[in-house]
Amino acid sequence: MPVKSGTQYRERIDAQSVPCWYKGNLITGKRSEHVAFAGLMETQMYMYDLQSDPKFAETMTYASPADGKPVGISFLPPTSADDLRKRREGMNIWANVHHGFLGRSPDYMNTAIMSFYTGADLLNEVSPQYAENLKNYYAYCRDHDITLSHAFIQPYASKISGQLDATEDAIAAKVVDRTEEGLIISGAFMMATQAATSDEIFVYPSPSPAPFDDENPFAFSFAVPNDLPGISLVCRDTYAAESHTNYPLSSRYEEMDNIVIFDRVLVPHERIFFAGSEEMSSRLFSGSNFHIHAGHQVLCRYIAKTEFVLGTIQLLTDTLDLNTEAHVIEKSARVFAGLESLKALALAAEAGAIPDGRGFVLPAPKPLMAANLLFPKLYPEMIEILQLLGSSGVIMIPQEEEFQSDIAPSLNVYLKGNDMASQERNALFRLIWELGSGSFGGRQTQFERFFFGNVLTVSNRLFSVYNKDQTNRQLVRDFLFNTSK
Amino acid sequence: MPVKSGTQYRERIDAQSVPCWYKGNLITGKRSEHVAFAGLMETQMYMYDLQSDPKFAETMTYASPADGKPVGISFLPPTSADDLRKRREGMNIWANVHHGFLGRSPDYMNTAIMSFYTGADLLNEVSPQYAENLKNYYAYCRDHDITLSHAFIQPYASKISGQLDATEDAIAAKVVDRTEEGLIISGAFMMATQAATSDEIFVYPSPSPAPFDDENPFAFSFAVPNDLPGISLVCRDTYAAESHTNYPLSSRYEEMDNIVIFDRVLVPHERIFFAGSEEMSSRLFSGSNFHIHAGHQVLCRYIAKTEFVLGTIQLLTDTLDLNTEAHVIEKSARVFAGLESLKALALAAEAGAIPDGRGFVLPAPKPLMAANLLFPKLYPEMIEILQLLGSSGVIMIPQEEEFQSDIAPSLNVYLKGNDMASQERNALFRLIWELGSGSFGGRQTQFERFFFGNVLTVSNRLFSVYNKDQTNRQLVRDFLFNTSK
Amino acid sequence: MPVKSGTQYRERIDAQSVPCWYKGNLITGKRSEHVAFAGLMETQMYMYDLQSDPKFAETMTYASPADGKPVGISFLPPTSADDLRKRREGMNIWANVHHGFLGRSPDYMNTAIMSFYTGADLLNEVSPQYAENLKNYYAYCRDHDITLSHAFIQPYASKISGQLDATEDAIAAKVVDRTEEGLIISGAFMMATQAATSDEIFVYPSPSPAPFDDENPFAFSFAVPNDLPGISLVCRDTYAAESHTNYPLSSRYEEMDNIVIFDRVLVPHERIFFAGSEEMSSRLFSGSNFHIHAGHQVLCRYIAKTEFVLGTIQLLTDTLDLNTEAHVIEKSARVFAGLESLKALALAAEAGAIPDGRGFVLPAPKPLMAANLLFPKLYPEMIEILQLLGSSGVIMIPQEEEFQSDIAPSLNVYLKGNDMASQERNALFRLIWELGSGSFGGRQTQFERFFFGNVLTVSNRLFSVYNKDQTNRQLVRDFLFNTSK
Amino acid sequence: MPVKSGTQYRERIDAQSVPCWYKGNLITGKRSEHVAFAGLMETQMYMYDLQSDPKFAETMTYASPADGKPVGISFLPPTSADDLRKRREGMNIWANVHHGFLGRSPDYMNTAIMSFYTGADLLNEVSPQYAENLKNYYAYCRDHDITLSHAFIQPYASKISGQLDATEDAIAAKVVDRTEEGLIISGAFMMATQAATSDEIFVYPSPSPAPFDDENPFAFSFAVPNDLPGISLVCRDTYAAESHTNYPLSSRYEEMDNIVIFDRVLVPHERIFFAGSEEMSSRLFSGSNFHIHAGHQVLCRYIAKTEFVLGTIQLLTDTLDLNTEAHVIEKSARVFAGLESLKALALAAEAGAIPDGRGFVLPAPKPLMAANLLFPKLYPEMIEILQLLGSSGVIMIPQEEEFQSDIAPSLNVYLKGNDMASQERNALFRLIWELGSGSFGGRQTQFERFFFGNVLTVSNRLFSVYNKDQTNRQLVRDFLFNTSK
Repeated sequence: MPVKSGTQYRERIDAQSVPCWYKGNLITGKRSEHVAFAGLMETQMYMYDLQSDPKFAETMTYASPADGKPVGISFLPPTSADDLRKRREGMNIWANVHHGFLGRSPDYMNTAIMSFYTGADLLNEVSPQYAENLKNYYAYCRDHDITLSHAFIQPYASKISGQLDATEDAIAAKVVDRTEEGLIISGAFMMATQAATSDEIFVYPSPSPAPFDDENPFAFSFAVPNDLPGISLVCRDTYAAESHTNYPLSSRYEEMDNIVIFDRVLVPHERIFFAGSEEMSSRLFSGSNFHIHAGHQVLCRYIAKTEFVLGTIQLLTDTLDLNTEAHVIEKSARVFAGLESLKALALAAEAGAIPDGRGFVLPAPKPLMAANLLFPKLYPEMIEILQLLGSSGVIMIPQEEEFQSDIAPSLNVYLKGNDMASQERNALFRLIWELGSGSFGGRQTQFERFFFGNVLTVSNRLFSVYNKDQTNRQLVRDFLFNTSK
Repeated sequence: MPVKSGTQYRERIDAQSVPCWYKGNLITGKRSEHVAFAGLMETQMYMYDLQSDPKFAETMTYASPADGKPVGISFLPPTSADDLRKRREGMNIWANVHHGFLGRSPDYMNTAIMSFYTGADLLNEVSPQYAENLKNYYAYCRDHDITLSHAFIQPYASKISGQLDATEDAIAAKVVDRTEEGLIISGAFMMATQAATSDEIFVYPSPSPAPFDDENPFAFSFAVPNDLPGISLVCRDTYAAESHTNYPLSSRYEEMDNIVIFDRVLVPHERIFFAGSEEMSSRLFSGSNFHIHAGHQVLCRYIAKTEFVLGTIQLLTDTLDLNTEAHVIEKSARVFAGLESLKALALAAEAGAIPDGRGFVLPAPKPLMAANLLFPKLYPEMIEILQLLGSSGVIMIPQEEEFQSDIAPSLNVYLKGNDMASQERNALFRLIWELGSGSFGGRQTQFERFFFGNVLTVSNRLFSVYNKDQTNRQLVRDFLFNTSK
Repeated sequence: MPVKSGTQYRERIDAQSVPCWYKGNLITGKRSEHVAFAGLMETQMYMYDLQSDPKFAETMTYASPADGKPVGISFLPPTSADDLRKRREGMNIWANVHHGFLGRSPDYMNTAIMSFYTGADLLNEVSPQYAENLKNYYAYCRDHDITLSHAFIQPYASKISGQLDATEDAIAAKVVDRTEEGLIISGAFMMATQAATSDEIFVYPSPSPAPFDDENPFAFSFAVPNDLPGISLVCRDTYAAESHTNYPLSSRYEEMDNIVIFDRVLVPHERIFFAGSEEMSSRLFSGSNFHIHAGHQVLCRYIAKTEFVLGTIQLLTDTLDLNTEAHVIEKSARVFAGLESLKALALAAEAGAIPDGRGFVLPAPKPLMAANLLFPKLYPEMIEILQLLGSSGVIMIPQEEEFQSDIAPSLNVYLKGNDMASQERNALFRLIWELGSGSFGGRQTQFERFFFGNVLTVSNRLFSVYNKDQTNRQLVRDFLFNTSK
Repeated sequence: MPVKSGTQYRERIDAQSVPCWYKGNLITGKRSEHVAFAGLMETQMYMYDLQSDPKFAETMTYASPADGKPVGISFLPPTSADDLRKRREGMNIWANVHHGFLGRSPDYMNTAIMSFYTGADLLNEVSPQYAENLKNYYAYCRDHDITLSHAFIQPYASKISGQLDATEDAIAAKVVDRTEEGLIISGAFMMATQAATSDEIFVYPSPSPAPFDDENPFAFSFAVPNDLPGISLVCRDTYAAESHTNYPLSSRYEEMDNIVIFDRVLVPHERIFFAGSEEMSSRLFSGSNFHIHAGHQVLCRYIAKTEFVLGTIQLLTDTLDLNTEAHVIEKSARVFAGLESLKALALAAEAGAIPDGRGFVLPAPKPLMAANLLFPKLYPEMIEILQLLGSSGVIMIPQEEEFQSDIAPSLNVYLKGNDMASQERNALFRLIWELGSGSFGGRQTQFERFFFGNVLTVSNRLFSVYNKDQTNRQLVRDFLFNTSK
C-alpha cells in the first residue's frame, strides 16, 4: 500500500469509535467536523496529500521494501549520511506547512517507530517473538501510513501510589491479567497529544515505579488501535476557533492533548514488544536511540519555527519603525544568532553521523542534544521579544468582523501601521497575540519548554554523553602538571 | 450623596447608550448580562457594596466636605502621613477582593482624579476657570461615586501622521472646532481599560505630536460621560467565560479593553480642564504627581497580587511534594524576597512622606518608583515559576464537567495530588493555567509589564529624580581626592 | 576599661607571637609594617580612634554595665527598637569609613559575640558553667574592646575523611584530649578573614560530620587568643599595595584571609562554651539568632557599599557623557531600585522588631533575610555595570607615576574626560579597575556572593521561616473553594 | 626568507629602541627579561619555533609565492574552502599552545593584514600606488614573519575635542604635515595590545570625528616599525608574575596593553595605504572583510579557550565530587551546548564559504557573526560558573612556597581533594583564581566582552547582514495574506 491521501486520513479518524470526552460529554459526530479538531485535521489532510503530489512525491517518499510502493520518507531507517539528508529534506516540506507548530506532525511518530525498529534486535535475547512483533508493527505502520500518537508519561498520582502501595493497589499502568489472546492492561497516561486525531497509540511507560526483578507488571510496551474496548480519551478545553484571520494559528494547528485511560484493555500478543523486565525496558529505550533519531526530526522543526517567529518579529519591527533602536537590534541579533546556531548544529549532526553498531546510521548525538537544550530557551525568549516590542498592541486588537462593520472607516484611519494598511496590521497583531498572549501560544511555550523533559532531564542527557570524555580535563592536566612546556 | 451601592453601579452602566462594538456588532442588551462584562461587574458590585457594609464603612469612607455624607476613602487628598495610612487600609479591602487582578479597580481612577485635584491651582495662571472646572469635577466624582476610566494613549498611527502632516490632516486627537457650548474633539485612544464598565472617561492625551506655540489644538484635557454623541467603543475579544471552576479568574476579573473613538464630540466648557498649551499640559501632569499618588494605590495592588500568586505557588509545590527540591527553594525564596521588598517599600513610602508644597502630602517618590521598576520583573518571574513547576500539568487539565460525567471515577483515581483530592487539584490547576498559559493570564503579564510605561520610561522616571542628587558621587570624590583621610 | 585607641589596637597586634606563614616564610617584623596588613591596620586604627572622638563618642559608645566606662555600641544587646536604631547609627559611622569593603569591620564580630550572649541561657540546661563562660567572655570582649575573628568553616577534606573514617583518623576539628586545664583541640579552618589582624578567635565548627550521640568530639565552641601554642596562620597572597592613587581600595581595605590550624591547642576550661553535644551546638547557634543580629549589621554595610559603588557608576557615566543613553538609564535605575529596596528593608527590620523571648529584641527576620538574598545578586550586577560601561577603559590605565614623568604632558592631553582632568579621570578608572577587574575586586565579588552561604543556603533560611506560614495559601484556598464570594 | 625562529623573534624585540614607559620610568634593559614581558615572549618564542618543527611545519606553513620558502599559514589568502581548512588546522596548533588566552596570537594580525591585502585593489580607484603599497607591505610581513600589533581605537578625549574644536586643535589622530619623505602624523591610540612585544604597528583610525569632504586629515592608514622617532608606548601595570605554579596563566600569557603616542612621526610614503578620504577608509575596511577573515581565526581561538575552561570546570566538579548535583549538571550542560554551538558554527562557516568577488574565498559571514555574539556571553558565564562552584576555595589559596615550608605537612592533610593530592589541588585552585578572581582573569573577561566591540556593535554587524533579507518575513506574509493554503 502506498502513502495515504488526506481524505483517507480523515475517513479513518472519523470511523473510530473510541469514547472521547469533551467538557463532560462524549463527542458524537465526526471528529473532522468538531471545532476542536477540524482545523488541525484539514492541515494534516493537506500534508498527507503532499506525499502524492508529483511536485514533492520523490522527496517525500521512498519505495517500500515490502512491495515497492511509495512510503513516507520519515519511515526510512538511515544507513548513510545521505539518508539523513533525504529524511531532512522530506520532513522539511511538512515543516514548511506547519511552521513548527505541530509537535506531533506525523513524521515525529514515524521517526519514533523507526527508531525502535532499529533497536528491535536487542529484544532477541529476551524473545525473538518480541523482536518480530516490533519489526512487523513498524512495517505495518510504514506500509499503511499509520498516524500514531504516543503514551509515555503517567499521572503524578501514579508515583504516590506506586511508592506506597502494594502492586495490587498501585495505580501506575500495569499488566493486571493475561489470557490466551493477550495481556490485560489498566492505567492512564497524560498528555497524549493528538491521540484523538491518530489511528493508533504506542505505549511505553516511563521507568516503573518499583523494582520487581522478575515478571515486573509495570514494565512493557505495545501499540494498539485507538478504539480497542476499554480505551477512553479525555480532552482539555480547545483553544481552536474557526476564523483564520482572528485565530491564524489555532484555527490551523491546534493539537488537542488527551488523557488516555486503559481500563482492562486486552492487548493481543502480537502487539506486545516486551513485558515483564524493567531492565529490558531501559535497554530497548536507550538502545533504540529514540532521542537521537527523533532529535533530528525535532531540529528540523525547531529551525522552521524559529524562521517563522523571526519573520514575525521582523514584520513587527518594520511596522513599528523600530529597526534603528539599539534594544531592537540587540534582541533581533540574539534571534539571528540562535537561528544560525540551530542550522549549524543540524549541519554538524549530519556531518558527524556515526554507525549505531547494528547497521544503521545515527546523526551525531552531541549537536542534537545541544539543540535540545538551546531551543527551549530560545523559543520563550523570542516570544518575550514579541511581547516586549508589541507592548499593549499585543492586547488591544479588534476582530476581523469590525472591519466589515460601520466602525470600519474609523479603524482604517486609526489602526494603520508604518507602510501597512489597518487590516493587514490587525492580522499581524492577531498572530502576535496568539503567539505571545493567547492560550494557543501559552501552550506552545509550555510544550517547547518540556518537549524532551525539563531542563535538568535534557541537561543530564547531554552531561552523560559529555562528562565521561576526559579530553578537556587532560588538556588542563597537561597544562598544570606537565612542566615540560 | 453617599457612596453608591452595587446595584446603583450596575444600573448606571446598563442605562448607558454609548455604541459599543463587539465582533462586528453593536451590543444591544444590558452590559451586565453580556458574558464579556457580567463577571467583572458582579465583582465590582460586590466591591461597591462593601463601602456601605457596616463592617468596612468606617475604613472605606470619610465624610464629604460638601455634605458630610460618606464618600470613598480613595478620593481623600492626603494632608498627613496618617491620611496615607487610611487610604492604604481602605484600598486594601478592595485589593483583597480582586487580589490585584483589577488594574482599574475604581480606587485607581479615584486616586487619579484626586491627584489632578491636588494640582488644580497650577491652572490658575492660565485661567482660574480651568482650575475651578477641575476642582468641581473632582468633587462631582467624589460625591457621586463616579466610576471613571481614562484615555491617555493614542494609536501608533497618530505618530506617523502627526509628524508628517499639517494639522488639518493629522489624526492625533485634537480640537477640530469650538462653539459657544464647548470644544469639538476628534481622535482615538487605545487601551481604555474598563471604558465599557465605567460612567465617565477622563481624557489627557500624551504630549502632542507637534510643537505649536500658541493655541495648540493637540493639547487639552477633559472628562465626559461615556455616552455623549460621537463617542464609540470598540472591544477586543473577551477572555471571560462563565464557570468559576473552569475559569476562576476570567469569570470574575476580566477587564475589557477598548478603543475609544471621538468623532466630533462636543465637550462642554465646564468639563475642559485646559486647552491650547502644551506647556500647561506637561506642567499640570507632573505637578499633580499622578504617578506618585497612583503609585501608592498601585503598590497596594502589587502586594495583594504577589501574595495571591505566592499562595498559588505554595499550593502547587505542596501538591507536587516539591518543598525539599533545591531549585524550588531558590525560586520560592526569590518570590518571598520580592514580597518583602514590596512591603518594605510601601512602609518607606509612607514613612518618608513629604509635603507637596500646596498643602497636600506625597508618599516618598523614590520607594514607589523603585516598586514600579521591580514588580514588572517580579510578576513575569512568578508566572514563569508556575510554568516551570507546573510543567505539562499546566496544560492537560479536564474541565469541571468531566467530574460530573461517567469518566469521573477514573479521573478521581488518576488525578489526585499529594494530600489533595482530584477535583480540588483540578481546580488549582485551572487557576494555574489561567495565570500561566491562558489568554487572561497572557494579558495580565503584558498589562503589568507596561502598566506605567515600558522599562525605559519607568527607569527614566526614577533616574530623573535620582541622578541629579550628588550625594553618592560626593562620597566617592571625597574618597578619591580628599587625601586627608 | 573604655574603648581602645588606634594605637592600642596596633600595639596588641604587633605584640602577638602567632606563627603566620606568608609565601613560605614566617612573618618576622611588625605586622603593622607588612604590606599585606599595613593599609588595613591604618584604616582600623582610624576607626578605633573615632570611638573616642568627642564628635562621635556619644553615638558610638554606651556605658558598660560593669564599670560605666564607654564601650562600643555594637556590643549593646538590644532590648528595644530604639536600641536597634542606636546600634545602626553607631555602626554607620564605621561603615562610612570603610564604605562596606570591610566584611570584618570590628562591629561585625562585636555583634556576633553579642548575639551568642543573648542565647547564653540556653546553655544552662547542659551546664550553668558553660552559660557563665560565654557571658564572661562577652563581657571581657566588650570591656577590653577585643578585636575578634571567627572560624566556622572547615576544609573540604574534613568532609571526605569524616564520612569515611573512624573518629581517630577523621581530620575534622575535634577534641583530641582533655586535661585538668582544658580541652586539647586539633583541626583546621578556612577563610578566617582578618585572623592575623585580630586579638582573638572565636571557634564554632559547622555541624559535625558524623552523629555521635554522646560525648561527640566534633561538637564544641570556644574562643582563645590568637597566639596560644599550637595555633598557626597561613596567608593567601596579598592584593594590597601601597599607593592610594594606584590602588585606592586595596591600599586601605585589603582584609587578609587565613587558614587557621590548631595543632593540639590547649583551650582552658573557662573558654569553652560547650562541648560534646551536637544537639546543643545547633540549638545555641539558631537560638542565639546569629544570622539575624549580624544581618542587621550586614545590611548597614550593604547600604554603605551600594552607595559607594553607585556613586562610582555615576561619576563614570558623567565623565563618559552617557546619561542620556537608554541602556545607561536602565542599568542605573536597577541600582537605584536596589538601593531603595535595601534601605526600605532596613527600615522594615527595625519597624518590625520582635522580642526574642529572653528579654532582648530582634530585628524582623524576614526583611533581613530578603536583603541577604538580594545583595549577593545586586553587588555582582553593579560590578558588571562598571565593566560594561567602562569597557576597555577599565583595563588600559597608566599608573600615577606616569603623571610625574616626561610622558605626562601627552597623557594630560589624551586622557582627559568629560569635565574631568586626566589625573582625576585616571584615579577614577584605577578605582573602577580595582572594583571591576583587579584581584581586590575579584575577592570582594566572591566574598559578597558567599557571605552568609551560597544562594541555596540563604534561600533555605528564608524559605524555612516563610513556608510554614499558611496565610497566602489560605487566601487562594478561600478563593478557589469558598464559593460564598 | 622563511618563517622566523623563537630566537629571532626575541632578538628583534630586544633590539627595539622605542621609548616604553612603565610606572613612570623608561624600560631600559631587554624587554625579554622584564617581568611584564618575559613569560609571554617565552610562550611566543615556543610558538614561532613550532613553525619550523618538522612535526608541524607542513601544517603551519606554505610556500611563499615570492621565493618558495615556507611562510606562516595564517598569511595564506584563501581561494577555496580547502584553504580555510588549512588555515584553521595551522592556527589550531598555536591555539593549543595558548589555549585561547592570547587575543593577539600572531596569527590574528597575520590574518588581519591578509584581509586588507584581499581588498587592496579597491584602492586602485584612488591611487594604484596605494594599492601597491598595501600589497607590498603584506608581502613584506609574510616573508619576514613580522609580528604586528594594531592601533584602531582612539582615546575618549578625541571625541570631545573632535566634535568641538577646529581641526588645528583637535586631538584626534591626524596628518599634521606632509613632506617629500612622507606624512607627519600626531595622535594617540588606546589598547594597542602587545605593541611592546611586536615588530611593527598597523594604524587604521576608526571613522574620523568630523566629516571633511576633501583632504580629510583624519582619514588614513599606514604601518610602521615600532621604533620610528616620535613613537612612545605607555604600559598599564602588569598582572604577570614569574611562578608557573602560583600564576599559571599570567606567567605565560599576560599580553601587555599599551597606549601608543605618535608625536609628529614621519611615515614614509610607501607605508601609506591611503590618506585624505573618509569614504575610502570605510570602503577599504568593509571591503576587506576584516571582521570575517579575522572572525575565522577568532572562532578557532574561542573553541580552544572554551575547551580549556570547560576542562577546568570538569576538574573542579570532580575534585569537589559535585557531578550528581542538579545545578552542576545544568551549568555544565550549558557549557557543553555552547562548545557544540561554536564548533558547529565553525563547520558552517567553512561549509558555506562564498567568493568575495575579487578571487578570494570568504567563510560564511553569518555563522561567524553569530559566534562573535555568543562567545562574549559564554565566556563570562563560564567564569561565573567557576566562581559559583569554587566558592571561597577560589580565594583562600596558599602559594606554592608554603608547600616547601614547615607548615607543608598540615596543608597536605587539610587541603587534599576528592582523589587529588593537596599540591595538585592547590595548583588547580590557583588556576581557577587567576581565571575567576585575579587581575589576569579580570582583564580576560573584559577583553572577550569587547573583543570586536560592545554588544550593540556586534549585534549591529549581524543585524545589518540579516535584516535586509526578506525570506522569513515573506514566509509570514504568505501565511497571513495568501489564503490559498
